[in-house]
Amino acid sequence: MSEPIPIVGGTGALGFGLALRLAAAGREVVIGSRDAGRAEEAAARVREQLPNASVDGAENPDAATRGPIVFLAVPFRAQSENLTNLKGALTEGQILVDATVPLAAAVSGKATRILGVPQGSAAQQAQEMVPEGVTVVSALHTVSAATLSKLDTELDEDVLVAGDGKDAKRRVAEVIGRVPGLRPVDAGRLEVARLVESLTPLLISVNILHKTHAGIKLTGLPDELWK
Amino acid sequence: MSEPIPIVGGTGALGFGLALRLAAAGREVVIGSRDAGRAEEAAARVREQLPNASVDGAENPDAATRGPIVFLAVPFRAQSENLTNLKGALTEGQILVDATVPLAAAVSGKATRILGVPQGSAAQQAQEMVPEGVTVVSALHTVSAATLSKLDTELDEDVLVAGDGKDAKRRVAEVIGRVPGLRPVDAGRLEVARLVESLTPLLISVNILHKTHAGIKLTGLPDELWK
Repeated sequence: MSEPIPIVGGTGALGFGLALRLAAAGREVVIGSRDAGRAEEAAARVREQLPNASVDGAENPDAATRGPIVFLAVPFRAQSENLTNLKGALTEGQILVDATVPLAAAVSGKATRILGVPQGSAAQQAQEMVPEGVTVVSALHTVSAATLSKLDTELDEDVLVAGDGKDAKRRVAEVIGRVPGLRPVDAGRLEVARLVESLTPLLISVNILHKTHAGIKLTGLPDELWK
Repeated sequence: MSEPIPIVGGTGALGFGLALRLAAAGREVVIGSRDAGRAEEAAARVREQLPNASVDGAENPDAATRGPIVFLAVPFRAQSENLTNLKGALTEGQILVDATVPLAAAVSGKATRILGVPQGSAAQQAQEMVPEGVTVVSALHTVSAATLSKLDTELDEDVLVAGDGKDAKRRVAEVIGRVPGLRPVDAGRLEVARLVESLTPLLISVNILHKTHAGIKLTGLPDELWK
């Protein structure tokens, strides 16, 4: 019996793609949104493609109480507001997986540029804002939302995972690794999120030039990554 | 008849590895160093491994006059000083390939952290410092010096190339692509170097955790990259 996986911002492109892939992998998913109705609609769209999927919709703070590992998939512009709204919902022992990227697009700049975040990275801002005892893990910055949302497109790429708790990272990797074609790779401490978040605008630049949805893979890694 | 390839800082780990691989690929190489004697020693070490190689050693500014595409492979700490010394040597029409990474190690910090560079990146600092008419292209930040230096280790990874001149990038890609196992990929404008330079401390973090020399590959790219 695996626990449900809440996705705060699950109606957005990345969150919805993730919901779809996790549901396809047999995990129970709770799609969160500011609006319960929109969350339910998104859940229904998952069930259309995957009739046997166990997918619910709920308001973000409700969704966040429904499982131990909560994914946060919102634009940087909305990250701080969402974390404020989650303050009463998240509790000690939970893991928050932050997929936020501080693209300059958040302030009407280019999506190929990154903002400087006072804490160092969006993930570190998240760690500053979550209730005591909640562990932030940074992940999912290089997986294309467009590719995730097309279930018939085979994935074959890495997901860099950064965080200060090895056990928390391992648990997040276990969830991400359930999606066929995604290989979670421990990239280091939470502060490394600053470097990982830079990959998104870099891939956006590559995508514009080469008209694609690129992902990344690391070469030279050992076979056993999470022993 | 291909032109010689000068490598400023060619006695350092990355520069020497690059000299070795380019020489093995049949290119004529000029290893530059602050000291002509050390440059000659390094050239002799290349010839030991590759008796037919055409490799010379010279003081950095001398080396930089010997071919149209000059590689700069020096630590960030020494980048500015080297560029000052090259001011009388580089001339209009040359391309300077900057492989510098502003690791915090330059100021006795960690190699898993990146410094903020006023111009945005080491490559942009280089563009500001080269003589008028010299084009800076940023490349080679993710290729392990250790791996390059072992000729019997097969390479299989990408090299992200950033710059403002498409033709200059194409010419650099042509040189890098001569090394078997390296695929040059256009990553965008020179300002994207800021994002690419972040890959080095990220890979250093991965290398420490997984005891390896990781490289990167992009997924989802078209077959024809430099048409």
